[in-house]
Amino acid sequence: MIDRLVIVGVGLIGGSVALALRRAGQIGHIVGIGRTPGNLAQALAHGVIDEAADDYARGVAEASCVLLAVPVGQIAGVLARIAPYLPENAVVTDAGSTKGGVAALARRHLDRRLPMFVPGHPIAGAEQSGVGAAQAALFQGKDVVLTPLPETDSSAIAQVRGLWQACGAVVSQMTPEAHDRVFAAVSHLPHLLSFALVEDIAGKENASQLFHYAASGFRDFTRIAGSSPEMWRDICLANRQALLQELDGYRGQIDRLRQALATEDGAALEAVFDRARAARNRWLDNQEPSRDET
Amino acid sequence: MIDRLVIVGVGLIGGSVALALRRAGQIGHIVGIGRTPGNLAQALAHGVIDEAADDYARGVAEASCVLLAVPVGQIAGVLARIAPYLPENAVVTDAGSTKGGVAALARRHLDRRLPMFVPGHPIAGAEQSGVGAAQAALFQGKDVVLTPLPETDSSAIAQVRGLWQACGAVVSQMTPEAHDRVFAAVSHLPHLLSFALVEDIAGKENASQLFHYAASGFRDFTRIAGSSPEMWRDICLANRQALLQELDGYRGQIDRLRQALATEDGAALEAVFDRARAARNRWLDNQEPSRDET
Repeated sequence: MIDRLVIVGVGLIGGSVALALRRAGQIGHIVGIGRTPGNLAQALAHGVIDEAADDYARGVAEASCVLLAVPVGQIAGVLARIAPYLPENAVVTDAGSTKGGVAALARRHLDRRLPMFVPGHPIAGAEQSGVGAAQAALFQGKDVVLTPLPETDSSAIAQVRGLWQACGAVVSQMTPEAHDRVFAAVSHLPHLLSFALVEDIAGKENASQLFHYAASGFRDFTRIAGSSPEMWRDICLANRQALLQELDGYRGQIDRLRQALATEDGAALEAVFDRARAARNRWLDNQEPSRDET
Repeated sequence: MIDRLVIVGVGLIGGSVALALRRAGQIGHIVGIGRTPGNLAQALAHGVIDEAADDYARGVAEASCVLLAVPVGQIAGVLARIAPYLPENAVVTDAGSTKGGVAALARRHLDRRLPMFVPGHPIAGAEQSGVGAAQAALFQGKDVVLTPLPETDSSAIAQVRGLWQACGAVVSQMTPEAHDRVFAAVSHLPHLLSFALVEDIAGKENASQLFHYAASGFRDFTRIAGSSPEMWRDICLANRQALLQELDGYRGQIDRLRQALATEDGAALEAVFDRARAARNRWLDNQEPSRDET
């Protein structure tokens, strides 16, 4: 049970947390803070939040928990603004898609309040945005990864774990570095590769002919190239080191395939395709029905 | 109207052509030839074909048109076997996913009958296979690309064009080389990249952890890595030159993104992501509802 939750950024994620906690009966009062007055007014009108605060000082004054549900690129600014006003025992958490950078920002801005900060990443939602897309069931059965620092207070971790479990999520824990390596491989790299393919094709002289013949495989491969450029710029920059490492590993893979192709080594190509298909099929067999990101 | 159509390989593609021509009332007698007796018996039992031939000589003896609907890797063998028995005026066409290699094979095996060969590629079907998946509407509104050679007889082209139009397809024409460059870019390269990503991740020590956190973006990006390894080995080998060229262009793109990432050039990253998203959205806006491959 959280007495007074302050949500900074009442969009798809922040709004869905509010709705889920209300449904679970695990929330007292919810204060919303946001950049977009219209969005905040909508959240208030629809009962997603109980109160809209227009400044950070008043907003967080009596918070028991603060959830930063803003894009990764805005977390530094928000942390700097709320830090002076945070109550002694307020737990702070975030929902950003990268964690090493967020942990470093918390270290820089939160000072003696650092132990009350629990970095987190819900693996849910992405296609739509804004509080209008929020839904109580968004996190039901979805993964949430918490990435506490060595200094993080164990009761703060327990509270944030409780918050996400009340939302129906499956909570796991790893270091910020491990988190960033995992998501560099399974999310950030595929996004980069997908953007790169569309850019590659769009830049060719016969681009319109190429797009004309592009089919369903191309559509699925490039679906994630329809994601927000601003958000993905921030994610790539924030997770630069891990992403560079994954990218280099992938280029090695591509180079081996290129070599097999250049030497007409059909057996090597088929072996790679075969292993990949088998691994993907095993994954699909073990997977829950659907899982969104970022 | 085709008097006597011989379909070599009565699977998804061959079977669907038969059903579509019957529905259009554009066919006399259909003879099926295939590697898999069970499949051929099923095609006969369901009325997809009128007759199953168990040898090539008898099968093609009185053909007015022969459709090779076998995987690219088997076209050489089939051409060699049917060449001696082809009637003087029989038109021959194929449905392979690559065309330069097929054109070269036709040149090698068909000799003086070469002008009657019209290489073709229907852009439809892939997820399922076998005659059980065949459907009369498979080619409705779909593209079929014909890639005649300089020697190809214009009446042969007109006949094959008519065959596909009777199936409801939209027929276009280009050289085999242009075809292979187009599909290297929008189909073969994405398949290679998708197989490579799954192979890359499956080979890591923490592969099961990585797959655990893989979400919907990964699922869509890698859907085409669920394709047939044998078929894609053949396509890659058959379209080796164009695919190598596309792969090198793509590596250049990746290198530029890597550079932007390494130098923390957020503006460059965002510009690429922005152009890619805009190009993809324009493409989706102009696209027909759905389009399959290979």
